[in-house]
Amino acid sequence: MIKVLDHGFARLVSYMQPAGVCVDWSGDLEIVRNARASYDADWRTGDDDKDAKLVNYLTKNRHTSPFEAMVFTFEVKAPIFVIRQWHRHRTWSYNEVSARYAELPEEFYVPEPAQITTQSTSNKQMRTTERHPRAERVHDAIYYHCENAFAAYKLLLEDGVPRELARGVLPLNTYTRMFATVDLHNLFHFLTLRLHEHAQYEIRVYAEALLELISPICPVAVAAFKEHRL
Amino acid sequence: MIKVLDHGFARLVSYMQPAGVCVDWSGDLEIVRNARASYDADWRTGDDDKDAKLVNYLTKNRHTSPFEAMVFTFEVKAPIFVIRQWHRHRTWSYNEVSARYAELPEEFYVPEPAQITTQSTSNKQMRTTERHPRAERVHDAIYYHCENAFAAYKLLLEDGVPRELARGVLPLNTYTRMFATVDLHNLFHFLTLRLHEHAQYEIRVYAEALLELISPICPVAVAAFKEHRL
Amino acid sequence: MIKVLDHGFARLVSYMQPAGVCVDWSGDLEIVRNARASYDADWRTGDDDKDAKLVNYLTKNRHTSPFEAMVFTFEVKAPIFVIRQWHRHRTWSYNEVSARYAELPEEFYVPEPAQITTQSTSNKQMRTTERHPRAERVHDAIYYHCENAFAAYKLLLEDGVPRELARGVLPLNTYTRMFATVDLHNLFHFLTLRLHEHAQYEIRVYAEALLELISPICPVAVAAFKEHRL
Amino acid sequence: MIKVLDHGFARLVSYMQPAGVCVDWSGDLEIVRNARASYDADWRTGDDDKDAKLVNYLTKNRHTSPFEAMVFTFEVKAPIFVIRQWHRHRTWSYNEVSARYAELPEEFYVPEPAQITTQSTSNKQMRTTERHPRAERVHDAIYYHCENAFAAYKLLLEDGVPRELARGVLPLNTYTRMFATVDLHNLFHFLTLRLHEHAQYEIRVYAEALLELISPICPVAVAAFKEHRL
Repeated sequence: MIKVLDHGFARLVSYMQPAGVCVDWSGDLEIVRNARASYDADWRTGDDDKDAKLVNYLTKNRHTSPFEAMVFTFEVKAPIFVIRQWHRHRTWSYNEVSARYAELPEEFYVPEPAQITTQSTSNKQMRTTERHPRAERVHDAIYYHCENAFAAYKLLLEDGVPRELARGVLPLNTYTRMFATVDLHNLFHFLTLRLHEHAQYEIRVYAEALLELISPICPVAVAAFKEHRL
Repeated sequence: MIKVLDHGFARLVSYMQPAGVCVDWSGDLEIVRNARASYDADWRTGDDDKDAKLVNYLTKNRHTSPFEAMVFTFEVKAPIFVIRQWHRHRTWSYNEVSARYAELPEEFYVPEPAQITTQSTSNKQMRTTERHPRAERVHDAIYYHCENAFAAYKLLLEDGVPRELARGVLPLNTYTRMFATVDLHNLFHFLTLRLHEHAQYEIRVYAEALLELISPICPVAVAAFKEHRL
Repeated sequence: MIKVLDHGFARLVSYMQPAGVCVDWSGDLEIVRNARASYDADWRTGDDDKDAKLVNYLTKNRHTSPFEAMVFTFEVKAPIFVIRQWHRHRTWSYNEVSARYAELPEEFYVPEPAQITTQSTSNKQMRTTERHPRAERVHDAIYYHCENAFAAYKLLLEDGVPRELARGVLPLNTYTRMFATVDLHNLFHFLTLRLHEHAQYEIRVYAEALLELISPICPVAVAAFKEHRL
Repeated sequence: MIKVLDHGFARLVSYMQPAGVCVDWSGDLEIVRNARASYDADWRTGDDDKDAKLVNYLTKNRHTSPFEAMVFTFEVKAPIFVIRQWHRHRTWSYNEVSARYAELPEEFYVPEPAQITTQSTSNKQMRTTERHPRAERVHDAIYYHCENAFAAYKLLLEDGVPRELARGVLPLNTYTRMFATVDLHNLFHFLTLRLHEHAQYEIRVYAEALLELISPICPVAVAAFKEHRL
């Protein structure tokens, strides 16, 4: 598990693994044997260099289907505004906590003062890297506002207001939690966009965590991705 | 355009239409001619009863691909918690206003007192139909909380806090706006789930609006859907 | 590996498995813990009956996302006309041998005489269960025609004709081979259609093989599927 | 309708068009107004240069969702081996003639002698551009083999063999026909791969036809695609 932001995390839950015993298996091999189906070739050469070369070639030339055979499930806890960006990636499968069903715990994101910068004017969607002159006070203002929102939420619940209506007062900084399943082709696409310097910092740190989590599973593919796609 | 909730709406923007002149065209005919491709039959019989019978048969037996050829784009303005449920439908294409790019206007959903009921205990995710004893006061509490949240949002923006951070204090009741494209097969699936009595009222009214919007375009398919799928 | 038809097979290559050690893991548990994310509940109750009840409930009520977290890769060898039907299922990922890249081995499907029946007249797309009066001769005719087609194919290749053009003479009965990845939700949908009595026998036997292959991995889900969906 | 190969064609059947009257509408405007939803801007500036600049920018930077709102249905008649490549594109919707349901007409692809070259040795999946020394004879051999296959097919059908079994002797060069629906984002992806010099000539000519068919509908996007993506 990798901690992300003030109360979030990402962890690897499950991933594709061989049905039987497979000596020296790795996620890279999974890619290799799916790719070699196209050539009607023996999928296992026993030659690690040859395998690595193939994974490298496939990554560089953006082959798709061999990477779709390597699938991961992550558990992620993140602020709702981050999850909103995440859910725009429609090739993932999501199972998220339902605020109709369960009361959301009082956990919300407050950016550290170091992260509170100013609005960029050259790029209308971004923030600058220049610290806001009143970063501490902005931090506190966000904290108190979110705390108030949770106080209102709890009062509504205590008064018997339905969960599905009470949640409407919660801020977009509220943490939520999901299981998310994706194949490596679509994960690489996600990472290309969300590791980009134009991506919002708060989702970029989750993208970095995912890349770190899969690195030991398919090190060759990850290295090739870093070299050719980032 | 159909008004939905206190400040929302749904309207039909575009839909599939024939490339050339096509006398008496309807969305139902679009389904018919795609279906008839499978039989290698002339797609147009000139026999409206026969066409209607086919559409009826395909709907009842949940055929899929002929309905995928009839596509609609809607513009929708809805509270964020509704859009969150909507975006879980991953076969739609979405273009939503970005709160990184633009300041969100001060518009938020406040349930009418008549809609403020109590938490169901028999179904953990639902609310009852029984009016909350203090519905008016709950309504006002939600209103004032959301107004306060927007006041905080505006103060942060005026102080030069980046839009992408300031939005974190906005409530889930905030209105957002999107263009959404979907084919009829997936729209019917959406409607089956979101017109269901277990769906939250606030998304059900949007589902009703969509059904009304497409009714004049493909009346036979909509009638068959109502008969066999609802 | 399960043998299917005269020269085909299906085998389970890989499937989702936990990242760490997980006592008494099963594919059913994978479904359970993804589903329980929605309730924000501890995913593992230690109560097998409760888990089985949940899987049963989810299957019966056609929940989707928890089943999307359980993914399988199969290797399949089947006649091209079977693979053509298979590829219409667009939620699978496929890696198939390329006849541009490799010469296809001389292997083709010839239906056993017992399978050679007559054209149904009541259902225009089906065959009857009544044996064709000249079933043996039909079998031989198909055999000799396919053998001739392969002879023509080989002659063309020997004469230096490009593989991508020479393959054009091969019959639809030619065997091809693929790796195919799918999640349990979409596999159940595939099985519902392809185990149906209206499905062609030659794909139905592959569907039966897949169901058998996943049975030991997620026995509770498979039992619930058989009870509620078939 | 554009004729392709010896007996095939592609034609544009339907595409997204506005729900109401829309002066000077074009498919480019459809992209523009979906894109502008993100900026919460008036979608119609009345400034054609500004619109063209935006479409150009979105194409160059591979934006996706605005292009998903522009959808086309084509009718295509092509050899089965071409359709097999086509169907690997899983974001299209297909309605294809069923050879279980209907007898396929005797139409098969025979490459013109000018197209009959030799197997490439440098690229294992391709053919060269160098004419085969016996191109005429190869052409005739393919023709006679396919004619024989259809003779066998018809004999089987006349003898009462089920259509779903008789089709097994038909060659991969047999023509089939489909309606195919796709959005512009995925069509551009298809075209990028299938207009590539490594794509097989027989699918490349269909890709060229599609590009020509959509050119008058969204000329700015097509021009930008040609400049930035090909």
